[in-house]
Amino acid sequence: MTVRFGLLGAGRIGKVHARAVTGNPGAVLVAVADAFPAAAEAIAAQYGCAVRTIEGIEAADDIDAVVICTPTDTHADLIERFSRAGKAIFCEKPIDLDVSRVRACLRVVEETGGKLMVGFNRRFDPHFMAVHQAIEAGRIGDVEMVTITSRDPGAPPVDYIKRSGGIFRDMTIHDFDMARFLLGEEPVSVTATAAVLVDKAIGEAGDYDSVSVIMQTASGKQAIISNSRRATYGYDQRIEVHGSKGMVAAENQRPVSIEIATGDGYTRPPLHDFFMTRYTEAYANEIASFIASLEQGTPLSPSGADGLAALALADAAVKSVQEKRLIDVG
Amino acid sequence: MTVRFGLLGAGRIGKVHARAVTGNPGAVLVAVADAFPAAAEAIAAQYGCAVRTIEGIEAADDIDAVVICTPTDTHADLIERFSRAGKAIFCEKPIDLDVSRVRACLRVVEETGGKLMVGFNRRFDPHFMAVHQAIEAGRIGDVEMVTITSRDPGAPPVDYIKRSGGIFRDMTIHDFDMARFLLGEEPVSVTATAAVLVDKAIGEAGDYDSVSVIMQTASGKQAIISNSRRATYGYDQRIEVHGSKGMVAAENQRPVSIEIATGDGYTRPPLHDFFMTRYTEAYANEIASFIASLEQGTPLSPSGADGLAALALADAAVKSVQEKRLIDVG
Amino acid sequence: MTVRFGLLGAGRIGKVHARAVTGNPGAVLVAVADAFPAAAEAIAAQYGCAVRTIEGIEAADDIDAVVICTPTDTHADLIERFSRAGKAIFCEKPIDLDVSRVRACLRVVEETGGKLMVGFNRRFDPHFMAVHQAIEAGRIGDVEMVTITSRDPGAPPVDYIKRSGGIFRDMTIHDFDMARFLLGEEPVSVTATAAVLVDKAIGEAGDYDSVSVIMQTASGKQAIISNSRRATYGYDQRIEVHGSKGMVAAENQRPVSIEIATGDGYTRPPLHDFFMTRYTEAYANEIASFIASLEQGTPLSPSGADGLAALALADAAVKSVQEKRLIDVG
Amino acid sequence: MTVRFGLLGAGRIGKVHARAVTGNPGAVLVAVADAFPAAAEAIAAQYGCAVRTIEGIEAADDIDAVVICTPTDTHADLIERFSRAGKAIFCEKPIDLDVSRVRACLRVVEETGGKLMVGFNRRFDPHFMAVHQAIEAGRIGDVEMVTITSRDPGAPPVDYIKRSGGIFRDMTIHDFDMARFLLGEEPVSVTATAAVLVDKAIGEAGDYDSVSVIMQTASGKQAIISNSRRATYGYDQRIEVHGSKGMVAAENQRPVSIEIATGDGYTRPPLHDFFMTRYTEAYANEIASFIASLEQGTPLSPSGADGLAALALADAAVKSVQEKRLIDVG
Repeated sequence: MTVRFGLLGAGRIGKVHARAVTGNPGAVLVAVADAFPAAAEAIAAQYGCAVRTIEGIEAADDIDAVVICTPTDTHADLIERFSRAGKAIFCEKPIDLDVSRVRACLRVVEETGGKLMVGFNRRFDPHFMAVHQAIEAGRIGDVEMVTITSRDPGAPPVDYIKRSGGIFRDMTIHDFDMARFLLGEEPVSVTATAAVLVDKAIGEAGDYDSVSVIMQTASGKQAIISNSRRATYGYDQRIEVHGSKGMVAAENQRPVSIEIATGDGYTRPPLHDFFMTRYTEAYANEIASFIASLEQGTPLSPSGADGLAALALADAAVKSVQEKRLIDVG
Repeated sequence: MTVRFGLLGAGRIGKVHARAVTGNPGAVLVAVADAFPAAAEAIAAQYGCAVRTIEGIEAADDIDAVVICTPTDTHADLIERFSRAGKAIFCEKPIDLDVSRVRACLRVVEETGGKLMVGFNRRFDPHFMAVHQAIEAGRIGDVEMVTITSRDPGAPPVDYIKRSGGIFRDMTIHDFDMARFLLGEEPVSVTATAAVLVDKAIGEAGDYDSVSVIMQTASGKQAIISNSRRATYGYDQRIEVHGSKGMVAAENQRPVSIEIATGDGYTRPPLHDFFMTRYTEAYANEIASFIASLEQGTPLSPSGADGLAALALADAAVKSVQEKRLIDVG
Repeated sequence: MTVRFGLLGAGRIGKVHARAVTGNPGAVLVAVADAFPAAAEAIAAQYGCAVRTIEGIEAADDIDAVVICTPTDTHADLIERFSRAGKAIFCEKPIDLDVSRVRACLRVVEETGGKLMVGFNRRFDPHFMAVHQAIEAGRIGDVEMVTITSRDPGAPPVDYIKRSGGIFRDMTIHDFDMARFLLGEEPVSVTATAAVLVDKAIGEAGDYDSVSVIMQTASGKQAIISNSRRATYGYDQRIEVHGSKGMVAAENQRPVSIEIATGDGYTRPPLHDFFMTRYTEAYANEIASFIASLEQGTPLSPSGADGLAALALADAAVKSVQEKRLIDVG
Repeated sequence: MTVRFGLLGAGRIGKVHARAVTGNPGAVLVAVADAFPAAAEAIAAQYGCAVRTIEGIEAADDIDAVVICTPTDTHADLIERFSRAGKAIFCEKPIDLDVSRVRACLRVVEETGGKLMVGFNRRFDPHFMAVHQAIEAGRIGDVEMVTITSRDPGAPPVDYIKRSGGIFRDMTIHDFDMARFLLGEEPVSVTATAAVLVDKAIGEAGDYDSVSVIMQTASGKQAIISNSRRATYGYDQRIEVHGSKGMVAAENQRPVSIEIATGDGYTRPPLHDFFMTRYTEAYANEIASFIASLEQGTPLSPSGADGLAALALADAAVKSVQEKRLIDVG
């Protein structure tokens, strides 16, 4: 079986998914749609697929699945439409920035028997996958404390910040999902602190750039998240899980692994400076997982419910900062 | 000038300080006192010093300074007595487990013009000192986020736990001091979660074994502390400071630095398994600092006020867990 | 300009180059030839190119360049034919196992004004490239001592060994080339020792599996090579260059960068276990360099002369082992 | 039993051994002798021992063992004298720079039933000891290839070079001993190259500063040594042993283990810059081993024969450079 794809959105992340789909032997990219025809045509030319409208893809008999890479505020609508059209859906995170809108959307997916996977790409990073596998294999015993350090190379433009839903919903959301993935239990409480240390303009836009979060599960397992919008040394992406029998950690990644020693010491190059180079393999792996699940008829994961759960944790973190207290989410 | 020492307490930590004093060219160990004569005599025999009573050391003309290594509940009394006796005092942490008792003790020190240094040995670990120096030298710009991971090789006996004042006052207190040392600003809030994951008996004794803490300063700097009473891989002691221009971290220490590669991978030996081997140099350095400050007439540091501040943060953490909210400590 | 390629040989390494050519925006794969039609057809089907005979590719007007991936004993003949046919040539190493045959072949290339690049892929590994760039940038001052450690995951079949030309010409040849690349001066002497430690059958076939080489240049710079046909921990590929101002080293590569800590220590996974996964990027980069040189009219590098020089060093190493002395090659 | 020591020579290395002896619970330092009375008196004052002449120590009833730390050209004579006097002898390497003088000396030791240990301190470095133990424990299977990288922080004065016996007998001799220690078989051949790359004055003094050596045993095991008199990044001391089941390596040591990350990369401090700080533990361990062997009546190791064997390998290396050939030493 070959899964026939339509691509909705031909921007930066759309190109990433186009490459992932066309590079996968179990898939074919049939058509691409974008509000900017030039963007769609560029992808069509490179990969030999058709340019169509969203409506055309919706109605197409020769398309089994879509990848939604359009702006965030269109995701929920498109999920509903394509769920009704009977297409399997891979949607970039988030489904929506509003929990009630996400709930409504997921009801439609459920009612229509839709198939939805949400793009938490980090679950498919080979290093983080290996951490998860080590846990599943019992290498560290029972999970006790998860520590996630996630720092961007640099803050995005303030215009982006304003539309982002805030750092917890935009950036920490990846870490909320990763914490759930690794804890193996749902958090029942969220505590967070937040500050503006990197860029005053972010504060003026009503957001934070430096945050710390603690979550705890019913059995007492704890997860700590540390976020900053700026790390001079590159894209800092570490996870560490401490358990009853040991610890497992994923190391940071750099494009070049050399070391230069001089009288000033031993120096290795900075980390990756961009999420696309850092997570190249993760993007390919998540599309491969989507295709494999469709082929084998197994549940799509991460699911819409996973997207909702991470968003709810982000909302709780916002509330914790505002109310200076631990928020029960159990 | 040679500083002439009396040692109060000849137990495990007393022996460590006896070695540090006798190995220092600026000091001489004159006498040792202990409730158990055999313990005092062993040190006296090894280092060629006298055995005296505490009263004898208090009244001695040939002793300039004392090192207090007696049980915790005697610290405050001894500090007051020896402060009145005009001896310079190095006291193992904590001064007392009760903040009001500490305050009363420090008033006596102040009124008598006493000289008091508190034994937060980790400030004198060469690796942590180098982290502090890198910050002071501006290598990472402004401090933004401090992360301290501190995990013991194994939980102490429950009898010890019961007398310890609880994990925050017994174990985390070192990390509260280190956070203050590295933040360069006083925390104004403390949030903590706590659980029993390692040993149910610890919970039955009314304590926790796995805790997470976030502190924040007035300007928004954040410190995260992660503690566990048990790490199978050894004594896990890491600090990391993220700043506006970079990051500095102290690596874990192991007694032997080899790596064995086989079909199972590349393996390095576990970490130190005991605080005394991990912090050997720190103990020598803190006594050297005490002696150098006495010789040069510079302020003793960490001071009694530092001891008080760390204890107050521990109390706030206890309260945060109990009341499920952020505690203002500004 | 787009470079139009013919691929000669559709085996394991042919597939690697087919992917590199088709993934390069400056190239198009027009045709493939192989003695086994099924192999050629598989590549043709995957990448949408034609299947032709070698003669057909030789005579084709729509082909600018060929990649030679056929068995070693056909390389020299094909280079001569396609040089006469006016095609640019990328040939897998070696040109031939016999120095005089290589010299004759290179004369034909020269007489016909042919363009020839030899596939020493390791020069294009991003980590080794970064080592070379650090040297060129003066980061370590003058090069003094090059150390190359190269160990295969496991020995090849004895049948392969018999046709390989021996370990120096088959395996060490990569390191001879790398040493020349990094020394920046030609070796004037070669000394080698060799033994059979891994597999007696290799010795019975007249070859060695464990060898050590020292080369020296006229100015005294030294290069050490250590080879083994078997490393249980994976494909061990390290280079290190010591200079007057410092040292630069490329670290080993592993597919997954995690670390698991338990009471047995800290363990990272084994290295890559196969040259194709270890050098994936190198293969893509060398074809990209070939294409870029053709487009820009710059010299192809590594050249036929580089191929000859590495082979001459291998011959000298063989002689050094036989005659138990240093061999002058200046 | 307490071993009563006399110290011959109160210079730099004499002080190191004085500290090792006095810090050992099984030993007492009775007397020190030195041609410069002030040097002897300084040690006597610090450790409360007597100052005596060499003759006085030779004749003393209250001394069981001597540590010889006098200039190299006095070692053989003193070993003979103190062997005849019935004292156990720990002698700094080398016994002499001339093999025939060493042989004559060892004959005297044998005839007098003397007890002699030679100070190859590196065998007692805890990291190198752990490498040896891993081999003995079978962790890497059969030893196949030993690689020793040994580079000094900076070249010694030319005056020292002139009296040193040359780099092979002065510096590489430690590595020859280490190679023998780790190979577990005697080398049967030595091949070496040598050059002057660091300091022309060294060449003018008839010596080299950059050398490479390969040794091979009868069964084909190989050892590579790479030496330089100058490494800008500190005292580079690595050993690595490749075997049939795996590899074991000792990492370099630095006084401070921190890492600073900025836009320029991740930097760790330079290595130790002095052999005395690098090998502090090794010096204490070797004296402890000497004392323990005397107490238990076990053979002293490394022995005089070990000292002779390493010197013979150094001589062979000199000859290999001169004659441009492999030298049989079996």
